[in-house]
Amino acid sequence: MKDNRLNKRKILNDPVYGFINIPSDLIFDLIEHPYFQRLRRIKQLGLTEYVYPGAVHTRFQHTLGALHLVDSALSVLRSKGFLITEKEEEAVSIAILLHDIGHGPYSHTLEKVIIENYSHEELSLLYMKDLNEQYKGKLDLAITIFTNQYPKKFLHQLVSSQLDMDRLDYLSRDSFYTGVSEGVVSSDRIIKMLSVANDELVVEAKGIYSIEKFLIARWLMYWQVYLHKTVISTEQLLLRIFGRVKELISLGHTIYLTDEFHFFFDNPGKKLNTKDILETFARIDDTDIIGLLKHWENDKDPVLSILSKNLLNRNLFRIEIQNEPFDTKIIEKHLFQASKKLHFTEHELRYFVFTDDISKNAYSAFDDKIQIAYKDGRLIDIAEASDMLNMSVLSKTVRKYFLCYPKEIE
Amino acid sequence: MKDNRLNKRKILNDPVYGFINIPSDLIFDLIEHPYFQRLRRIKQLGLTEYVYPGAVHTRFQHTLGALHLVDSALSVLRSKGFLITEKEEEAVSIAILLHDIGHGPYSHTLEKVIIENYSHEELSLLYMKDLNEQYKGKLDLAITIFTNQYPKKFLHQLVSSQLDMDRLDYLSRDSFYTGVSEGVVSSDRIIKMLSVANDELVVEAKGIYSIEKFLIARWLMYWQVYLHKTVISTEQLLLRIFGRVKELISLGHTIYLTDEFHFFFDNPGKKLNTKDILETFARIDDTDIIGLLKHWENDKDPVLSILSKNLLNRNLFRIEIQNEPFDTKIIEKHLFQASKKLHFTEHELRYFVFTDDISKNAYSAFDDKIQIAYKDGRLIDIAEASDMLNMSVLSKTVRKYFLCYPKEIE
Amino acid sequence: MKDNRLNKRKILNDPVYGFINIPSDLIFDLIEHPYFQRLRRIKQLGLTEYVYPGAVHTRFQHTLGALHLVDSALSVLRSKGFLITEKEEEAVSIAILLHDIGHGPYSHTLEKVIIENYSHEELSLLYMKDLNEQYKGKLDLAITIFTNQYPKKFLHQLVSSQLDMDRLDYLSRDSFYTGVSEGVVSSDRIIKMLSVANDELVVEAKGIYSIEKFLIARWLMYWQVYLHKTVISTEQLLLRIFGRVKELISLGHTIYLTDEFHFFFDNPGKKLNTKDILETFARIDDTDIIGLLKHWENDKDPVLSILSKNLLNRNLFRIEIQNEPFDTKIIEKHLFQASKKLHFTEHELRYFVFTDDISKNAYSAFDDKIQIAYKDGRLIDIAEASDMLNMSVLSKTVRKYFLCYPKEIE
Amino acid sequence: MKDNRLNKRKILNDPVYGFINIPSDLIFDLIEHPYFQRLRRIKQLGLTEYVYPGAVHTRFQHTLGALHLVDSALSVLRSKGFLITEKEEEAVSIAILLHDIGHGPYSHTLEKVIIENYSHEELSLLYMKDLNEQYKGKLDLAITIFTNQYPKKFLHQLVSSQLDMDRLDYLSRDSFYTGVSEGVVSSDRIIKMLSVANDELVVEAKGIYSIEKFLIARWLMYWQVYLHKTVISTEQLLLRIFGRVKELISLGHTIYLTDEFHFFFDNPGKKLNTKDILETFARIDDTDIIGLLKHWENDKDPVLSILSKNLLNRNLFRIEIQNEPFDTKIIEKHLFQASKKLHFTEHELRYFVFTDDISKNAYSAFDDKIQIAYKDGRLIDIAEASDMLNMSVLSKTVRKYFLCYPKEIE
Repeated sequence: MKDNRLNKRKILNDPVYGFINIPSDLIFDLIEHPYFQRLRRIKQLGLTEYVYPGAVHTRFQHTLGALHLVDSALSVLRSKGFLITEKEEEAVSIAILLHDIGHGPYSHTLEKVIIENYSHEELSLLYMKDLNEQYKGKLDLAITIFTNQYPKKFLHQLVSSQLDMDRLDYLSRDSFYTGVSEGVVSSDRIIKMLSVANDELVVEAKGIYSIEKFLIARWLMYWQVYLHKTVISTEQLLLRIFGRVKELISLGHTIYLTDEFHFFFDNPGKKLNTKDILETFARIDDTDIIGLLKHWENDKDPVLSILSKNLLNRNLFRIEIQNEPFDTKIIEKHLFQASKKLHFTEHELRYFVFTDDISKNAYSAFDDKIQIAYKDGRLIDIAEASDMLNMSVLSKTVRKYFLCYPKEIE
Repeated sequence: MKDNRLNKRKILNDPVYGFINIPSDLIFDLIEHPYFQRLRRIKQLGLTEYVYPGAVHTRFQHTLGALHLVDSALSVLRSKGFLITEKEEEAVSIAILLHDIGHGPYSHTLEKVIIENYSHEELSLLYMKDLNEQYKGKLDLAITIFTNQYPKKFLHQLVSSQLDMDRLDYLSRDSFYTGVSEGVVSSDRIIKMLSVANDELVVEAKGIYSIEKFLIARWLMYWQVYLHKTVISTEQLLLRIFGRVKELISLGHTIYLTDEFHFFFDNPGKKLNTKDILETFARIDDTDIIGLLKHWENDKDPVLSILSKNLLNRNLFRIEIQNEPFDTKIIEKHLFQASKKLHFTEHELRYFVFTDDISKNAYSAFDDKIQIAYKDGRLIDIAEASDMLNMSVLSKTVRKYFLCYPKEIE
Repeated sequence: MKDNRLNKRKILNDPVYGFINIPSDLIFDLIEHPYFQRLRRIKQLGLTEYVYPGAVHTRFQHTLGALHLVDSALSVLRSKGFLITEKEEEAVSIAILLHDIGHGPYSHTLEKVIIENYSHEELSLLYMKDLNEQYKGKLDLAITIFTNQYPKKFLHQLVSSQLDMDRLDYLSRDSFYTGVSEGVVSSDRIIKMLSVANDELVVEAKGIYSIEKFLIARWLMYWQVYLHKTVISTEQLLLRIFGRVKELISLGHTIYLTDEFHFFFDNPGKKLNTKDILETFARIDDTDIIGLLKHWENDKDPVLSILSKNLLNRNLFRIEIQNEPFDTKIIEKHLFQASKKLHFTEHELRYFVFTDDISKNAYSAFDDKIQIAYKDGRLIDIAEASDMLNMSVLSKTVRKYFLCYPKEIE
Repeated sequence: MKDNRLNKRKILNDPVYGFINIPSDLIFDLIEHPYFQRLRRIKQLGLTEYVYPGAVHTRFQHTLGALHLVDSALSVLRSKGFLITEKEEEAVSIAILLHDIGHGPYSHTLEKVIIENYSHEELSLLYMKDLNEQYKGKLDLAITIFTNQYPKKFLHQLVSSQLDMDRLDYLSRDSFYTGVSEGVVSSDRIIKMLSVANDELVVEAKGIYSIEKFLIARWLMYWQVYLHKTVISTEQLLLRIFGRVKELISLGHTIYLTDEFHFFFDNPGKKLNTKDILETFARIDDTDIIGLLKHWENDKDPVLSILSKNLLNRNLFRIEIQNEPFDTKIIEKHLFQASKKLHFTEHELRYFVFTDDISKNAYSAFDDKIQIAYKDGRLIDIAEASDMLNMSVLSKTVRKYFLCYPKEIE
């Protein structure tokens, strides 16, 4: 037991699962890589901590948690007689470990704000390819699985599907850290019920209630946490700040930026080298955004300065949510009232009074199914198999409209 | 139910206790104050997350948790017939809320590094006095209690003593977030057993086992978490970085600093105005340190640059711990080996190879007692009352010595 | 603090809530009463432990848990400004404490088997009236509330309604003891959201997700636990045993019975005195049933003997469940196959091969509503207020059919 | 996957660990055996539920829990490279499963009261041998391990030693069901630290804090639960009842007994056949004791009748505990006062006023060590290795004296 490989095996403490094993040498090295260590400084739920103070957990923890669940799932599937080689095991572990590596600071909120042309999934793939070069092709199979080109599709589905280990971890973890027990998912139970049919991940029939519960928990977490109105108000504030910064830059103003942000924001539209993008982006995390806000709260542009100060000191917009679009008259009324408090042009006021919509569907049968496997061999989609039938509701897209305005004009 | 006071009453979700009530208008306003909001950006356990990835909780959460426990304790004491006025309730709530307001980034590690002349307790008091001016004397009683000048000493002891609500919260919370179950404390049970005798906080005799468990839990948390050798190694790395920065400044080098750090580090020894200190310090949090490290990893001084890069990428010193001081020869041997890898002067090498000691006592009977109240009126210190007797061990100061050196020279 | 009243105040440990306070002297005395102590020997979930071995908790614990939740709810309602006198507090506490006092051994399974003319609710009321005499009218108000004759209807609704503290406790407790996390309900959160409008218990609008979760949790618990097919099979076995006993008695056979069962089973149809019923019934608990089975497994009637032995040794019927009634031919086929293993008459065989149906609705808007209170004063039933809409599904009665037969004939 | 063996594989829900796998066919059959099913009707903590109402869990659950921990431990040891064959795995699983099979009703309290000549361990071994005959020698290896005659001693130590899986389960489980969090043990962490040296079970050095915590948790559970004074008072009441019954029988009185108790109690001193003992004892469980008490509360002997009624209705002795024996005068004073309330002879009064002692040591270095394995190969006993040193206290036998007397004479 003295070889290098075993020396690197580590056990990590995790508040959600107790212990997490690092299953191999290569995975240990990937975790140690600066690209990955950076995830320690990116909060899983971004600005949600403004509403749920406990929710300061990081993408680093989430990813390790998802790795742990993949390992559990593989061991359950093996015990049911499905062949999974050690090579496949390591590859799918790497795929889940790196599935979020392309996330930037304040993840979803600032996605496509810092780098306009790539989603975080596309960036994750670029990072994987870059690491694959650094590790001399050792990530080949992981990439094949991640991009769903591997015949054993269930391996990809563990990483990305309606029932992937990513979701299973984030629901449990977000629920744990926010203290919102609605999202508690019995991941143990779901994983014990996993099986494989026609190379696809399926759920044994006796696990149907757990799947129903999982889908409902996800739905409830959307409304209680992910789309909580104060969270949206906070995210909008951050978005308006970056909107203003980009506008000011386009108008030729000089705005404080770090080198990394100069790289992305100077000369918008310019062609950037992929390797440069990856290396520069990997130097940015949540702390950079706070650092910028601290400079911008002293910017000479009063719009940028006020918005930045408001975010730092948690002085948020008032927000209203409704099922129909807001009437133009209501918006104009709020703009008018805002104009009495804030001496801005109408264009500037629209950074403080604005409306938009949010929408979300918890489960869509069209994208990807959750298949229930019966003892007689039938495979039936959960939307059809469920006694509760309300899956038709869960899979419907819900659209809600919000209106933000300053607290002062109430 | 339309008055302003009630409008501000809020319930916060907390993963440890479920819900936390904000008990009054003034307390709500203090929480909203930028001085307090800053605590959102100061991690309770600083660099401990490098060992326990879950431990990213903040001083903001901890303080609200301690507030919650104080409120529970007051309500238990009232139910036992002890008079506590509404004014006293608000005052002790404010005192606990602000007891950590003087903490800076990476709390204990950088204490006296950024501001050399004040401990965090002294800074907390200065901030309270400053807020007292802002709120026109409404914090008078809170300050009297915080400084232990109030006749009902048990109110101060809820805020600061061997059995204060600060400790009760941080043990539970640190245990929860690290996933180290050794520190789990039944705070409910301890609080139910609190009572008052001669104006002092005491514990009813039937709570003796819970107190024993609490002291042992604290002891175990020291060795499992607070003094975990890799945590110490990480903290030492941060300390060496700041040591090098100060040395370079004293030698006349130009080092990147933010305005706030220029204020504290330029012209060491200069006289600073207290109000300026408070306002400047309140603009600094954990994110500033990360921001500085990101600049310093490109500094032209190779010592500073290597150390900063190592901390950002979690490339830590190897550390050894033992009960006796390390022999000079061992240190010299490590220095010699380091010199073959790192081409530095001996003085510079001592940033990479060094030794020091840590010591801690979990309970000292001399400072402050935990008194057990028997039904017949006797008050006996836990160290004497405990059947387990090992309190004599717990109260003994333990000193351990560590040696740090680069992983490469192993 | 030396008066008798306070001496009786007690704190009990409870694994679900931590601590339960006994709020008054009278309630302490009621708990000490043999009628109530008997609930220690009646399992909350009866034979469910044959499927979920952890589910051996008692009606005693459940009732104390519900008492705890009522006290929490009253304290929340008071903090929102609703007047509840000390007398009302004690009365509603007594009402919840005694709401299940009429339950007999194996509760729902044997309801109307031992005493044919009374439901357990009717028996609970009779016991309350009997205790009211013993305590000289001190339960008058409790009875008025229990029977819903008190103007402040919300007090009754805390004891019995779609959202009563009985349900809140049993879902949490049954979930805790079975280990089926699907039933976990955030009772804390729901209770914090309770309010009163027009003397009725309502839920504040921001609690709507918790209510949705509560209704779904209840639904899932029905199918995972309460109507689990093996649980039904076990209950049916117990019912068939008592059916056979009664049949044999009516045929003049001498069957072993304890004095208490002689009282109820001899001379069916005879007129019984209420006081005698109450006193005799109060001497019966789960252990009596086991005692009877141990005698009956040696009875000379082979049907009774085999069934009793099967229950004691957990040798259960095979059970099939489907959405439509079972075809007569299938039943006849099973009877025929059973006849080859068991040499019984067809009449006797029908104790081993039989079919019936189960049905359950988790929420019925017709019985009693859960009203959501909006800030603008509107009150809307959850079935209408819920975005998830599937309340229409939850409130639909589901009927399922089962077929039982001996394992041997498979 | 259609063979018989796999068909019998089952997963059970457990509130403490989530899921428990039944690892083999033979183990499934043993669980189904009436000898084992009987453990469903024997509470793990006997009369402790009179103090901790939640503590109604059974020996059935505990044994399955210990089985689960053994399986986890074996899998950890295998992952560290220690060879454990499938045959050994099944054998040690059987040994833990049956280690408590010799327990009778109210376990420790009535041990040697019903069967005077055998401890429960001796009975367990007799049952194993009996089952071994029934299963044609398939338990040979399990018995060899149980009786510590197998060379790989660590297998026996998993079943019975200072650190066996029996203790690990009962501490966790008793803590869970009583709600006394002091006993929470991180069994996961301890099991991950297990290793083997010289065929003995050892603990890796980094697990030392967890072992310290485990020993302290055990100590605290003794005083909080197992030796709680009201628990002792309750157990003494049960013991006095059986003492009186045996005395009355020896005096020639006719006392109600079931057939099984006639077998054991008639003609004391008579020679009994082992097979008869096993079969008769296996028909007795907790419910029989309650059944007897219900008869005895109407016995014509007033001592027996009063004591039995008191136990059924939880009317317990007052109990005092102190470190020294009680003075004869105090006992005589209580006897005298009791004589004024209860018109009995002095001999009879001694069933109501009596004194005795209890003693317990949590860890004794003499019996069996817990060895800590250091990386350099040293093995050191925890009593020596522990920094806390108080192991010397924990391993000391503590003796306490109690005095019981009726509440009425206070």
